[in-house]
Amino acid sequence: MSAPLFLVDVLPAAGSFTLDGPEGHHAATVQRLRAGESLILADGRGGSATAEVTAVGKGFVTATVTGSHHEPAPDPRLVVVQGIAKGDRGELAVQAMTEVGVDTIVPWVAARSVAKWRDERPLARWRATAREAAKQARRPWLPTVTPVDVPFKPTFVLDEAAQTRLSTVDLPSVDEIVLVVGPEGGIAPEELASFESAGAVLVRLGDSVLRTSTAGVAALSVLSVRLGRW
Amino acid sequence: MSAPLFLVDVLPAAGSFTLDGPEGHHAATVQRLRAGESLILADGRGGSATAEVTAVGKGFVTATVTGSHHEPAPDPRLVVVQGIAKGDRGELAVQAMTEVGVDTIVPWVAARSVAKWRDERPLARWRATAREAAKQARRPWLPTVTPVDVPFKPTFVLDEAAQTRLSTVDLPSVDEIVLVVGPEGGIAPEELASFESAGAVLVRLGDSVLRTSTAGVAALSVLSVRLGRW
Repeated sequence: MSAPLFLVDVLPAAGSFTLDGPEGHHAATVQRLRAGESLILADGRGGSATAEVTAVGKGFVTATVTGSHHEPAPDPRLVVVQGIAKGDRGELAVQAMTEVGVDTIVPWVAARSVAKWRDERPLARWRATAREAAKQARRPWLPTVTPVDVPFKPTFVLDEAAQTRLSTVDLPSVDEIVLVVGPEGGIAPEELASFESAGAVLVRLGDSVLRTSTAGVAALSVLSVRLGRW
Repeated sequence: MSAPLFLVDVLPAAGSFTLDGPEGHHAATVQRLRAGESLILADGRGGSATAEVTAVGKGFVTATVTGSHHEPAPDPRLVVVQGIAKGDRGELAVQAMTEVGVDTIVPWVAARSVAKWRDERPLARWRATAREAAKQARRPWLPTVTPVDVPFKPTFVLDEAAQTRLSTVDLPSVDEIVLVVGPEGGIAPEELASFESAGAVLVRLGDSVLRTSTAGVAALSVLSVRLGRW
């Protein structure tokens, strides 16, 4: 198993440091790290350090930095506009998409979104889910979850009726690829038309109908192969 | 949206037929089909028929066959040996893998499987989950969930420490590709060694650590592209 990853605002310089606060508590009490074991510190912006635990206290660990690394920012960035979904399907989508490399998630209230977000709590849950999933996945760059319905320029729209396949469509040379995934009920015809007139290409994966919590993960997997990341 | 799919033991001949039993109840009461709407009947073994509803009764619909199709059996078959996992992670894996095209799932009690299956209920849940997911996904071939720990010959084993990538590894010309996905805690070194001596290649996807409920879906997505299915 990989060493556990903890998020810090600022990476320690070389030498010894103390990890306290919620992450220190997690390291000492939940992960139950012991002296001699390894951990990773990450700032969520590409910077990381490996360290070896020297002592464990109540709610903190001390450790010595053994190495550091900076991972360049992903290029292009992978943005998924995710139709908000009922129950825990949205959080499942956020969790799995974070594991497979999404960089930005835009929660989208689609015409057929059954769930309504009446306050800030669902957005806070998506953000917490993305943060935890990024830690679990040992990702050096934390994904961003934007506010609901921020404007976006779609590159591709997943549509089970599309003729073009995501596996073979030309990938544009852009800073970010923006993929739209509909909610449970799919994307309404007027929404599809509006995305197309904004320059998006409608694409599909295979012949099956994918749930909204599966479609983004599958599409990101395809893009990861095509971009040479996997 | 695609027409809803219902499973039948035997497909109707051309002409009119009545769909009753649990699937008829589902069509009439849950899906609330109306006269003039379309549905798909499938036998789960590649055969399907499209039909148009002519009448809806209490717990049944009558419909007229408008077309039929036989989808050849998948070649190669995609088999996933899935380490059994805690909570609902196993069912989430079964559900999403069914959507993206798994043909056979072998529940595997790995050395690090925390969950224990003490009776037939977890297996029954996996089977019911696969059946429902196949219907949702409109899959013409139903996947099979074998009994726990049936013998298998592994082709690939997902291992985050592997050097070889699933996206570029040679795919053998075989009737079935058998992919092993570990439980939450990963695959134990002695298990990896045993798979390797049985001829399996250890492969990875990207640099992230994937949950057991995400790894199979991502790997099947990669294989679907490589096999020209997507």
